[in-house]
Amino acid sequence: MPAPSIAVIGVPGLKEVAPGDNLGELIVQALGGAGLRAEDGDIFVVTQKIVSKAEGRVVQLDSIEPSAAARAWAAAHHKDARVLEVILRESRRIVRMDHGVLIAETRHGFVCANAGVDASNAPAGTVTLLPEDPDRSAQRLQAYLENAFGVRLAVVVSDTFGRPWREGVVNVAVGVAGVAPLLDYRGQPDNQGRPMQVTVVAVADELAAAAELVMQKTRRIPVAFVRGYDYQAAAGSGRELLRPPEQDLFR
Amino acid sequence: MPAPSIAVIGVPGLKEVAPGDNLGELIVQALGGAGLRAEDGDIFVVTQKIVSKAEGRVVQLDSIEPSAAARAWAAAHHKDARVLEVILRESRRIVRMDHGVLIAETRHGFVCANAGVDASNAPAGTVTLLPEDPDRSAQRLQAYLENAFGVRLAVVVSDTFGRPWREGVVNVAVGVAGVAPLLDYRGQPDNQGRPMQVTVVAVADELAAAAELVMQKTRRIPVAFVRGYDYQAAAGSGRELLRPPEQDLFR
Repeated sequence: MPAPSIAVIGVPGLKEVAPGDNLGELIVQALGGAGLRAEDGDIFVVTQKIVSKAEGRVVQLDSIEPSAAARAWAAAHHKDARVLEVILRESRRIVRMDHGVLIAETRHGFVCANAGVDASNAPAGTVTLLPEDPDRSAQRLQAYLENAFGVRLAVVVSDTFGRPWREGVVNVAVGVAGVAPLLDYRGQPDNQGRPMQVTVVAVADELAAAAELVMQKTRRIPVAFVRGYDYQAAAGSGRELLRPPEQDLFR
Repeated sequence: MPAPSIAVIGVPGLKEVAPGDNLGELIVQALGGAGLRAEDGDIFVVTQKIVSKAEGRVVQLDSIEPSAAARAWAAAHHKDARVLEVILRESRRIVRMDHGVLIAETRHGFVCANAGVDASNAPAGTVTLLPEDPDRSAQRLQAYLENAFGVRLAVVVSDTFGRPWREGVVNVAVGVAGVAPLLDYRGQPDNQGRPMQVTVVAVADELAAAAELVMQKTRRIPVAFVRGYDYQAAAGSGRELLRPPEQDLFR
């Protein structure tokens, strides 16, 4: 039996992304500059940060008038009331607000710190929001890259999320196109021939995590691809990774 | 700038592990059988299941006398009272018990389904427990493999854990030896020259997740290694990944 393997390759040399840029085109240019080209089945992982910048999901903080609630919480926690106002606008539910940490459910349904609003790697005086529709962002990139290289590809738009109980953030999938985000083993036998207990693996999150290992450091590599991963092509959606509220023990 | 890359390689051909086996020796044999050998800096990811089996952390269910509490909950949820009894013995705190799901904090401090007690891929009539001390398990494997190959290596003992809010399980690190599980960017500038917000990345969990992508399917590949990942060698410990209770918003 041959050893199964994958390669995870970072794409260096991507230029700084600005609102209105064609991100697919920039990725193709960076690949070319690095002597790389996409092959059939490659899965591209792209950080939401550059997707959001290209899509103009950047907010000038001096345009924001904070509400009284945002001002009060910001004053109590030594935060910028304008940033807090943006977070509240991006949220449909506040999950926890404690220890100076704000965990919110975004309008998409993601539960994460600050509803995905982030000042890192954003121009001074601005914050970035999550893409409006990360699946559509992934689909657009998939279409552009498939057309450019004449092969079938998948795209994951990723962000780094914290987790309850565990320290540190990990990269996860927020938008998906071209790969099923969940791999379902239910009913398949384990190596004793009995049905397996742990049955659904969030492979899109694992792909995002693998990609982060080559994106690391100061995030100057916001695009990577996974080559050699054996998967069934499927439309896919980041929404499949959201646990339905009625099954959520931690609301 | 060259493209940064890593390879994630599954180790096929590992024989079925039994209590008392020298797991390091079995891994060396499997590597040899597949024409592979460890190179300096490789990070081995080994599922807790085979570690637990080698260490004899296997419980015969017919030796278990369930308590009244275990019987009552089992009857209400159509579970095996003996399995529930084992779960309760492995737990220091029940985090949630609802929808037929039991989330517990293990005696190590991990928060996971069924306190890590699992019947999949275990001999009929038995369940496996998490290793007594997963860091020590990782250290022992590291020492054996470093000696066998004459190079410096790291080892992550992994398990698949569910997460609140997100569907599916992902592979995470429970024991670590030879690599710092958290990569701390605090104080380092982002690409705008300002200190980064998202600052501590759980790289050991990302390494475990990457490895799962080649371990997939019916788990007949319980060992993989990551080659080419740029890291600082450190003692490391899975305990570094546990959020201190006083900072935990989801107890």
